[in-house]
Amino acid sequence: MQIGIVGLGLIGGSLGLKWRSQGHQIVGISRRADTCTRALQLGVADIATTALTALKSADVIVLATPLSAIVPTVEQLVPILHPETCLTDVGSAKAAIVSAIEALWPNFVGGHPMAGKAESGIEVAEANLFAGCPYVLTPTVSTPQEATACISELSQSLGSKLYTCSPAEHDRAVAWISHLPVMVSASLIRACLQEADPKVLELAQQLASSGFRDTSRVGGGSPELGVMMARHNRAAVLESLAQYRQQL
Amino acid sequence: MQIGIVGLGLIGGSLGLKWRSQGHQIVGISRRADTCTRALQLGVADIATTALTALKSADVIVLATPLSAIVPTVEQLVPILHPETCLTDVGSAKAAIVSAIEALWPNFVGGHPMAGKAESGIEVAEANLFAGCPYVLTPTVSTPQEATACISELSQSLGSKLYTCSPAEHDRAVAWISHLPVMVSASLIRACLQEADPKVLELAQQLASSGFRDTSRVGGGSPELGVMMARHNRAAVLESLAQYRQQL
Repeated sequence: MQIGIVGLGLIGGSLGLKWRSQGHQIVGISRRADTCTRALQLGVADIATTALTALKSADVIVLATPLSAIVPTVEQLVPILHPETCLTDVGSAKAAIVSAIEALWPNFVGGHPMAGKAESGIEVAEANLFAGCPYVLTPTVSTPQEATACISELSQSLGSKLYTCSPAEHDRAVAWISHLPVMVSASLIRACLQEADPKVLELAQQLASSGFRDTSRVGGGSPELGVMMARHNRAAVLESLAQYRQQL
Repeated sequence: MQIGIVGLGLIGGSLGLKWRSQGHQIVGISRRADTCTRALQLGVADIATTALTALKSADVIVLATPLSAIVPTVEQLVPILHPETCLTDVGSAKAAIVSAIEALWPNFVGGHPMAGKAESGIEVAEANLFAGCPYVLTPTVSTPQEATACISELSQSLGSKLYTCSPAEHDRAVAWISHLPVMVSASLIRACLQEADPKVLELAQQLASSGFRDTSRVGGGSPELGVMMARHNRAAVLESLAQYRQQL
């Protein structure tokens, strides 16, 4: 099968490594020419280029860009592709993206492989990143059954555990377990850094126990990721945040 | 040196094992006769009894009971001890306890060894529990210098890192790094369990990532511990909670 991957970071790079090892032909697309060079060196792709037109005969295309670039990428792909091409994405928020893409390209099934690392980028990609991790697919009533079957098979070939639910159910579940913890944790770090007494702040940093390190870990990551989560999963995050504040 | 330890749980038991291995004579006190028997079997103490009167010739006494039992224990000890006996405690909140004990027994220095385990009780005590962990002492203007010197030396002999600050500074620092994370984390668990849609709740539990597990870990412990923290470190916890809510 010829599989196109748009976005050659940790997720896109790892997908390329694994599927290429299974004999699929991988066409990798990156905005940056030097990432394309690295993709070829690392064995992530058979062909790597900055031109989306290289995807015109792909059987499957995985959108593995940052969340905000997914729908604009599909808009650019629409005039290029033949209608049999099956699209999927790896975005961590689904409802808004799925409805936008379905309107542009019906042969699409939303996806979310729930694997990651502290580091990002193609340099840390690895073929077994998804082994044992959840891979959520979010087909809707209008998703072609063949598209769901095709992406199910590809995702399971990664060694991941397949879950299927609606885009809205996905977004509420990840609001609880992923987006809300990031906000809770980031707020903890920021509140602590506002301590007015420098001696207390220094002492807190010296004494910081494993309890603090664990609770604050996920909040210490990229601020952009938090903003993206809040923007693309706004309704579900706001609802879970309201219930959280009440508990607190 | 003869060292009395009141409360033979994880902390009291571990102190006994370590100091006894250094040649000190350990008198262990527990409310429960079977814990005294185990203390002797495990090598935690040379003498172990339920009677506080066994402490009448102790050089140093460590109060290692739960927070709420520390001051009542000192009240019972006052008529028994000779004035040279140096008292210390291991409570995780200091200001209220230190001022209450100083009024009863001037020869006292507050302490807080910041070591622990998921399990509690004498069965999991170990001599090296404190190695590399912070041990905070909170002397005040009225603490005798010899008392501070004596407890400093004993705590450093555990291999721990000694920090000294005021009781109020201690309480603000631990509110940030220990008490607040427990509340933040417990609220996250409770808010999530209130999800009304059983399918979303089930999905959330299946997908729960390391981010959620880390952020919710410290909140999953004993509810009594959280209540004790909130009661004994009320002012500092409320202040940090207010700043946290504002950040959120």
